[in-house]
Amino acid sequence: MNRKVIVIGAVALGSKAACRFKRLMPDAQVTLIDSDEQISYGGCGIPYYISGDISNASELRSTSFHRVRDEAFFREDKGVDVMTGTTALSIDRDNKSVRIRMKTGEEKDLPYDKLVIATGARPRKLDIPGFDKKNVFAVGSLNNAIAIKSALISGKVEKAVIIGGGFIGLEMAEAISDMWEIETHVVEYCDQIMPGFVSKNLSIMAKKVMEEKGIFFHLGESVREIQGADAVAGVRTDNGILEADMVISAVGIAPDSDLALRAGLELSDYGHIVVNDRMQTSDPDIYSGGDCVTITNLVTGKPGYFPLGSMANRQGRVIGSNLAGIDARFPGAVGSFSVKTFDYALAGAGLTIEKAIKEGIDAASIQVAQFDRAHFYPEKDIIFLELVVDRKTRRVLGIQGFGGKDSGMIARINSVATLLHHHITVEEISNLEFTYSPPFASAMDIVNALGNAAENYLDGRLRPIQASEFLDYWNQRDSGKCFFLDCRAAADGLPIEEKYRKFWKSIPHDELQRRMDEVPKDKKLILICNTGVRSYETQINLESAGIKDTANLCAGMAGLRACGIEV
Amino acid sequence: MNRKVIVIGAVALGSKAACRFKRLMPDAQVTLIDSDEQISYGGCGIPYYISGDISNASELRSTSFHRVRDEAFFREDKGVDVMTGTTALSIDRDNKSVRIRMKTGEEKDLPYDKLVIATGARPRKLDIPGFDKKNVFAVGSLNNAIAIKSALISGKVEKAVIIGGGFIGLEMAEAISDMWEIETHVVEYCDQIMPGFVSKNLSIMAKKVMEEKGIFFHLGESVREIQGADAVAGVRTDNGILEADMVISAVGIAPDSDLALRAGLELSDYGHIVVNDRMQTSDPDIYSGGDCVTITNLVTGKPGYFPLGSMANRQGRVIGSNLAGIDARFPGAVGSFSVKTFDYALAGAGLTIEKAIKEGIDAASIQVAQFDRAHFYPEKDIIFLELVVDRKTRRVLGIQGFGGKDSGMIARINSVATLLHHHITVEEISNLEFTYSPPFASAMDIVNALGNAAENYLDGRLRPIQASEFLDYWNQRDSGKCFFLDCRAAADGLPIEEKYRKFWKSIPHDELQRRMDEVPKDKKLILICNTGVRSYETQINLESAGIKDTANLCAGMAGLRACGIEV
Repeated sequence: MNRKVIVIGAVALGSKAACRFKRLMPDAQVTLIDSDEQISYGGCGIPYYISGDISNASELRSTSFHRVRDEAFFREDKGVDVMTGTTALSIDRDNKSVRIRMKTGEEKDLPYDKLVIATGARPRKLDIPGFDKKNVFAVGSLNNAIAIKSALISGKVEKAVIIGGGFIGLEMAEAISDMWEIETHVVEYCDQIMPGFVSKNLSIMAKKVMEEKGIFFHLGESVREIQGADAVAGVRTDNGILEADMVISAVGIAPDSDLALRAGLELSDYGHIVVNDRMQTSDPDIYSGGDCVTITNLVTGKPGYFPLGSMANRQGRVIGSNLAGIDARFPGAVGSFSVKTFDYALAGAGLTIEKAIKEGIDAASIQVAQFDRAHFYPEKDIIFLELVVDRKTRRVLGIQGFGGKDSGMIARINSVATLLHHHITVEEISNLEFTYSPPFASAMDIVNALGNAAENYLDGRLRPIQASEFLDYWNQRDSGKCFFLDCRAAADGLPIEEKYRKFWKSIPHDELQRRMDEVPKDKKLILICNTGVRSYETQINLESAGIKDTANLCAGMAGLRACGIEV
Repeated sequence: MNRKVIVIGAVALGSKAACRFKRLMPDAQVTLIDSDEQISYGGCGIPYYISGDISNASELRSTSFHRVRDEAFFREDKGVDVMTGTTALSIDRDNKSVRIRMKTGEEKDLPYDKLVIATGARPRKLDIPGFDKKNVFAVGSLNNAIAIKSALISGKVEKAVIIGGGFIGLEMAEAISDMWEIETHVVEYCDQIMPGFVSKNLSIMAKKVMEEKGIFFHLGESVREIQGADAVAGVRTDNGILEADMVISAVGIAPDSDLALRAGLELSDYGHIVVNDRMQTSDPDIYSGGDCVTITNLVTGKPGYFPLGSMANRQGRVIGSNLAGIDARFPGAVGSFSVKTFDYALAGAGLTIEKAIKEGIDAASIQVAQFDRAHFYPEKDIIFLELVVDRKTRRVLGIQGFGGKDSGMIARINSVATLLHHHITVEEISNLEFTYSPPFASAMDIVNALGNAAENYLDGRLRPIQASEFLDYWNQRDSGKCFFLDCRAAADGLPIEEKYRKFWKSIPHDELQRRMDEVPKDKKLILICNTGVRSYETQINLESAGIKDTANLCAGMAGLRACGIEV
């Protein structure tokens, strides 16, 4: 029996593992140690504390019944001993003990039957000059968050630069610009926001809504130096100087695995602690999980890194069960995520098209736009979904989406995300049984339409282009090489035809058969309607009439509008 | 090649099959015939047309780009010939032709290579006197809907009785009471609304919100007679007379399979057309789908009946593909559904606990209540989920839920519903990877909490009762056999203790260990907190102290409140 369990780290995974174990074995002795005084907080809520949505930092440390999760809580409510301000110095695996230094400075050895390493991750630091100046922050802990909020409350911050356009960068940009009315610039090294998480095309939609709220983006740009005397005064990038009296670095995190390394536990090449599907490290008496471990990516079958509070919570529970002798497994993850950008959201799971190709897969992606509810139902939102598939096996590799934060987009992502590890094909998406009634879905729901479009694409019936490719054609519209065929009703198409008679023609789809001789046959035809449905039918009719050099703007004018592309 | 395809029935499945086939084989000849003039309408939208959310019936027949799907639309846009007002009289399978009677009264034989039967379903009629009186309606077609709305617009309807408390009954009750301010009574033969779709417990929550909007329910009551001279004046039930100047019958539908029967096609005992997973009838040249067929219930493996517009659309597409020589399959369904009840919704998939037991399965169900988002995030809703599992195999058989119509409830239902046919166990629900960020989910999301609770229940750690069982104990509170232990903070628990000192005691969970001797040991203890979490911990602590006769009110006070149970 595991009578003595020590847990190092008391934020998400550590606390969960300790409490679950204690519930299963009420007589056991569990000690939770953390070098910080602030323990058991919801780190993912930090941006909403900064924004003022959450007024007090203690709310991030409270249960749903408003009890702060402090030492007393763990002792009285959970029967778990907590030692804050206590650092784990080293692990003696042979003698099964942990050397600790307590608040008082005193050191001692704590014996364990089983040990849990929940040391989490640290914010990455850019190796550039000036990172140590005043008002340069990372978003790594609740203490940092409190410091950022203090600086904001001081009223002296007028311009801020956020380094990094991933989750945390975007959430922090929204937080400080929306509530604090600070001129906010996001500098991102890649040529898109949320790199690796959504396609460039979807990223542009989110960027547009954030730009409309006043945030400035500097993409494909690196920060070279943080300038200023004592405090930050500006940021020098490849392209020039951005004035700033606050800098928030959000350039990713790295596993905090020093202790594990020194204990001789197996680490990955990137420094993650290696665990099996019971969350055991290379020492079976030592468990680990959360932001410091690598787990299996269930789409690629390779090691993956998914530092998210939700992972930590679920893995913590699995560890707690295993500590108590239950055979619990955590098979891996597909990387589901969601991020709010003002009134909209991006979400996804699995591989993006860019990542799939990098994995060496002959992958394709298809995008659709459709209402999230029956089109005849008064309340509804246009949402955008993108499916990433393996051309050969037709396996679904990933799904991403953009839509209103209160739309049905995230529900669609989740219904596909949770299937990804079952190795489903596009045909299963076509038949996906989403709950249907007009206030909640369409009879042919967008998620089914996505599967249908993918099937039509893989079978060669649908030849799509996305908004970014449209833009390439549009930019060469005067070259005479391409021609735009507007398949919408005349009332929509004619005004544009009148403006651009040389390369744009309105032939509503229902007039196509009798006006087939008006279609140019010597040019690449770009087919356009509202959402790509009528232009798909046009593509099929043209094909049947022998006109094969056509490209259907999937997601249609709705997709262009969402990307901020005007014709 | 299938050059000539005839489709009988042009509402949902027929139109979809015809158009999909025509897109795949543009040169083929497709004829869509229907005895009605109103074709290709969204029948599921009828309640929203009645309510006025949708102002004009033609909107139910329009595409998302506002084109009415009439004969001209099918001809010009789809290349499909349509014959409305045309009845299919018989099928001559030997000669592969259909005998039709056209609008003019003229009869003729139409030859086919392949035939699609999409005759749908008819509203069931109660075999009671008075069903043919004026202002007695069924919700079977768009024509009926137009007639109902005309009667409402006349302003002469003050009291209405709806027979049937299923989907259509509830949607119609909301439609006429909300917009038209008609005193509305729903009479349901079973002892709950939505029988077969949700547990009694969840049904009570939906009933409560509808009652608060002024709708009257008469459950466990049968209608015996519809009274009145020419027009309806009242409804006589087992229990008395309900005045009414309108009656809407919504007692279910029956497959319209007469034509198939006369053609000698295989039917089920209940009159559904039998099809294989390519949607072929017993005659491989004849396909069928939608409301007139039986398909496999993917949870039980037995024949099921899922008459929903979404099924018809997806099956129609599968038929269209098969007609064109693509090997497309429709493996079956798990019965996902959703229904809006004013500002709330019920949704689910798979088996309810009652149905699972009827199937002879040793099934159990567990309910949880939790916020749909991080509890520290300002916008959030308490939602209720119920999981139905097989005790032996731990397989998940079904999930149902109740929550705000704009809450994340439906997203959770869908993320589990789409997994049901993969034969998952409760452990997969515990680890379900729902997209996480505070505005959209909790770090330990409610759907994971549901799996955790089911696991704890199956393993004997959690011994739950639901609100209805609580009520039974509450009603015998003076018997001295049971005792209520309130695990919430003293501020919540003490006022109730003061009121009911004989059988209610407040011991906040964090005070339990030092107040253990105050716990009565000779009575069944009913453990209560807000949502069942602290009372679960109390149950474990009591067990560990040797006090084993305890029952945890899962969903806690939140569940009682939602059911309208007051203590």
